[in-house]
Amino acid sequence: MIYWFDLFGTAVFALTGLLAAKDKKLDWYGGVVLAMVTAIGGGTFRDIALGRTPVFWIQDDAYFWVILSTAIIATPFISRMHSPGRWLVWSDAFGLALFNVIGCQVALASGSSLIVAVFMGMATGTFGGMIRDLLVSEIPLVLRHEIYATAALMGGIVYIALYHLPIPSGVAECLSMVTCVVIRILAINKQWSLPKLN
Amino acid sequence: MIYWFDLFGTAVFALTGLLAAKDKKLDWYGGVVLAMVTAIGGGTFRDIALGRTPVFWIQDDAYFWVILSTAIIATPFISRMHSPGRWLVWSDAFGLALFNVIGCQVALASGSSLIVAVFMGMATGTFGGMIRDLLVSEIPLVLRHEIYATAALMGGIVYIALYHLPIPSGVAECLSMVTCVVIRILAINKQWSLPKLN
Amino acid sequence: MIYWFDLFGTAVFALTGLLAAKDKKLDWYGGVVLAMVTAIGGGTFRDIALGRTPVFWIQDDAYFWVILSTAIIATPFISRMHSPGRWLVWSDAFGLALFNVIGCQVALASGSSLIVAVFMGMATGTFGGMIRDLLVSEIPLVLRHEIYATAALMGGIVYIALYHLPIPSGVAECLSMVTCVVIRILAINKQWSLPKLN
Repeated sequence: MIYWFDLFGTAVFALTGLLAAKDKKLDWYGGVVLAMVTAIGGGTFRDIALGRTPVFWIQDDAYFWVILSTAIIATPFISRMHSPGRWLVWSDAFGLALFNVIGCQVALASGSSLIVAVFMGMATGTFGGMIRDLLVSEIPLVLRHEIYATAALMGGIVYIALYHLPIPSGVAECLSMVTCVVIRILAINKQWSLPKLN
Repeated sequence: MIYWFDLFGTAVFALTGLLAAKDKKLDWYGGVVLAMVTAIGGGTFRDIALGRTPVFWIQDDAYFWVILSTAIIATPFISRMHSPGRWLVWSDAFGLALFNVIGCQVALASGSSLIVAVFMGMATGTFGGMIRDLLVSEIPLVLRHEIYATAALMGGIVYIALYHLPIPSGVAECLSMVTCVVIRILAINKQWSLPKLN
Repeated sequence: MIYWFDLFGTAVFALTGLLAAKDKKLDWYGGVVLAMVTAIGGGTFRDIALGRTPVFWIQDDAYFWVILSTAIIATPFISRMHSPGRWLVWSDAFGLALFNVIGCQVALASGSSLIVAVFMGMATGTFGGMIRDLLVSEIPLVLRHEIYATAALMGGIVYIALYHLPIPSGVAECLSMVTCVVIRILAINKQWSLPKLN
């Protein structure tokens, strides 16, 4: 079941990449590259740093097909889609929460310490979007003023805290994801932000 | 023979990096870095993602020497060279076609599926130039309006299609490269481009 | 002892990342990311390219704690700190020289050739700062006009030259670091720069 959610999260992240490409007037190839980078960039970094190669999308090309299908299906409707649509924000928060948990799990399974596991969760959830922003010559949004990585951080801490308790792993996963999604959505609705450095 | 062509392609890609550095008024070290990134960036990504480490230029330092020699030999003439010179465009198309085939071959030899092999061909041929553009704060050209990655894609599809047929591997390589070069050169001369997303 | 110096260099590089984040008005999370990228980016590239995974900061999470502590301790004072402060310049030169030697050593221990070892030293010392500049949408300073990578290069050549001589390894390390620091500080004081490409 996590697997199907993972493919759904991949499709949602791919869509945000495609929308970024549209905003910058890239061509279709640029759109597919941004979709890929957003969807699999974080997990690729995680796998490479942990030494889990070939990386996940080489071992299982379902991720590629999902991204390509998303790009093909979404392209005819792209002119009518806008970045901050309500369902996209919720789906994106869900994708972030899920990728975050998966990143924590993969890192722990590879023998990482707890702090590295929390970081790898955040990296899995946020690095793809960071590389996407880099490719269109923007200072990544996540570094500037959004509670995005912070939501992932909180979800990761919840997951790690519950990880050693004698409860079913599904419960830890759910509570972590709920924490992350709730913080993310609240942050958007209440326009929370981290203090600037100065 | 592929090996010598490979070193030639490396030199050509290094030269395009050096020219990008000149356009942005970087210093000589910046020029060498851009030359390196353009020439070995794509293959480095491919090797790392496939888990083929140490990467190719660590295993065989001929690539380094070729890039350094190219930079040293080209520097005195750099003020008279211009990016879109005819021979450079042809050499660059040849380098793209060759790196593309090598990328496909390496991915297949590592057990990748066909779609991943085609992608790894494109990545080997185009990611170096993408990182070069990133380093000089440009949205990569390949994402915006050129038929460059698309030429690699077509070459890769031809190679994959012929790969399982009982023909000599040299024939598949040649046909793939011819496809890629012809599409690239036609695209430049006829000013083809992919449709923008909007 | 090298280990403690290494952690000190990590803290100094983290601080330069934090200061870059302040200059660009990023938020606290952006500051921590830039601190991390600057401090461990170069070594991460080195380890991944050499196939030494999991990378060093996964195997030993002291680096993470040093970076986090640096960020937490420095934040209250950040408004009074300025990038080109004298002690920061010296510390940064020391960090560069040290990371450079460590990079050379790690590459040689992995069986790299001499030219690759020198390159890996430079990469370990300079790539973190390069990615930091990329993330804030700047053409990396090191590519434009500073004698920074060149100082690392000279230190690397000294280290390689002494490496096969029958002298204690500590002597080679010290001479390499002194070379690098002296060139770097002289270059700042005398405003040396490499010629531009044109």
